[in-house]
Amino acid sequence: MSLRTLGAKAAAALDEELMSSGAFSIDQLMELAGLSVSQAMYTLSPPSKSPRVLVACGPGNNGGDGLVAARHLHHFGYKPSVYFPKQSKNELYARLRKQLEQLKVPFTEDFAGEVGRSDFVIDAIFGFSFSGEVREPFPAVIRALAESKVPVLAVDAPSSWNIEEGLPGDGPGKGYNPDALISLTAPKPLVKWFKGRHFVGGRFVSGEIAEKYGFDIPPYKGSDQVVEVPLGGEKL
Amino acid sequence: MSLRTLGAKAAAALDEELMSSGAFSIDQLMELAGLSVSQAMYTLSPPSKSPRVLVACGPGNNGGDGLVAARHLHHFGYKPSVYFPKQSKNELYARLRKQLEQLKVPFTEDFAGEVGRSDFVIDAIFGFSFSGEVREPFPAVIRALAESKVPVLAVDAPSSWNIEEGLPGDGPGKGYNPDALISLTAPKPLVKWFKGRHFVGGRFVSGEIAEKYGFDIPPYKGSDQVVEVPLGGEKL
Repeated sequence: MSLRTLGAKAAAALDEELMSSGAFSIDQLMELAGLSVSQAMYTLSPPSKSPRVLVACGPGNNGGDGLVAARHLHHFGYKPSVYFPKQSKNELYARLRKQLEQLKVPFTEDFAGEVGRSDFVIDAIFGFSFSGEVREPFPAVIRALAESKVPVLAVDAPSSWNIEEGLPGDGPGKGYNPDALISLTAPKPLVKWFKGRHFVGGRFVSGEIAEKYGFDIPPYKGSDQVVEVPLGGEKL
Repeated sequence: MSLRTLGAKAAAALDEELMSSGAFSIDQLMELAGLSVSQAMYTLSPPSKSPRVLVACGPGNNGGDGLVAARHLHHFGYKPSVYFPKQSKNELYARLRKQLEQLKVPFTEDFAGEVGRSDFVIDAIFGFSFSGEVREPFPAVIRALAESKVPVLAVDAPSSWNIEEGLPGDGPGKGYNPDALISLTAPKPLVKWFKGRHFVGGRFVSGEIAEKYGFDIPPYKGSDQVVEVPLGGEKL
């Protein structure tokens, strides 16, 4: 099976279209994306096996997906904790954070310390809009992920990877390789360099939109919000 | 198994709390509620068996849940159609409608005619805030549901039923009996009088909140957003 990929610029244009002429709110899209992330996590390892999931959230939409996922993980029976060092001023993030605080989900400022106490990490630091250098305080997080043996599920992109080229944005050898990846809406070109379990989530795009942007709706089953797809043969 | 129920006033207070101190947006809650409705529909009868689902939407939040459900049904492979005769001026409903129009989901003004061409009906007309008389144009819809043999999934309450007393609000004999019911967050007292398949959806409330309002979190499995619960023995 091969899924066509969606480049960074096209992914940004698609998000823009969904929220303008598509009439979606970011709350809707992020809720469905974050839910699919949490359900991929459940498929990878249920709470009975991996109760302590550390969710690393960046300052943008990828981090928002992580905050939503952490909330759903709590309801699934996990004990999530959240690393969210650069909260944007957008009120959406304040609300997503408050929703977690009401569930008593702990926030940590010590990623490197917390990772050793975790059974799984979700990397929701950077998504398809990442380019260039990894900025502080995230280089130390990428290093901790590279050095740790704790398995990682990356959201949309392994943070530090170039979306189109797959190489870590801050130079070869400075990135890390996640065990699993969930692509949101469609795989990004970097999946060509990814080896591991691969999921697609974010089931809210019409076939017409997929055609317009040149990607494929993945083969979701039934009413599922996430699907595991074999790697290999992606059309680039 | 017995689930404690949530009365109409408590359900309204809970919604209010989730959206004030709980920091949820209505977009988030409605997306999760509507998704669970669509997944209950899938469990009842998949699109291969019941492709044509007619979703009857009232002017309030229950109707909004129906609009969201119709959108997900489209993505699951159904051919939904929507009856939405009294659109509120709230921009949320305009957006939910536009999302469906972009998927080319048809809107019908002829419920009684459309019901005979449908394989299933979702009744998202009135929810827990209903009381008193069924207002125009909905009495004819309730009559059509009572006269039709098409199976019905009711959202939160069979429309026209009294939330606490179970009897149709416009007098005995004027209501209808749905084949299935999905209670959102928690069953309402009317479930005592309901005979059929019963689901609970809306998996976004903490155990602490459930205790405060005196209801039970239903026994969701894994990462599911909806659960079927046997009827009988609900504590009232």
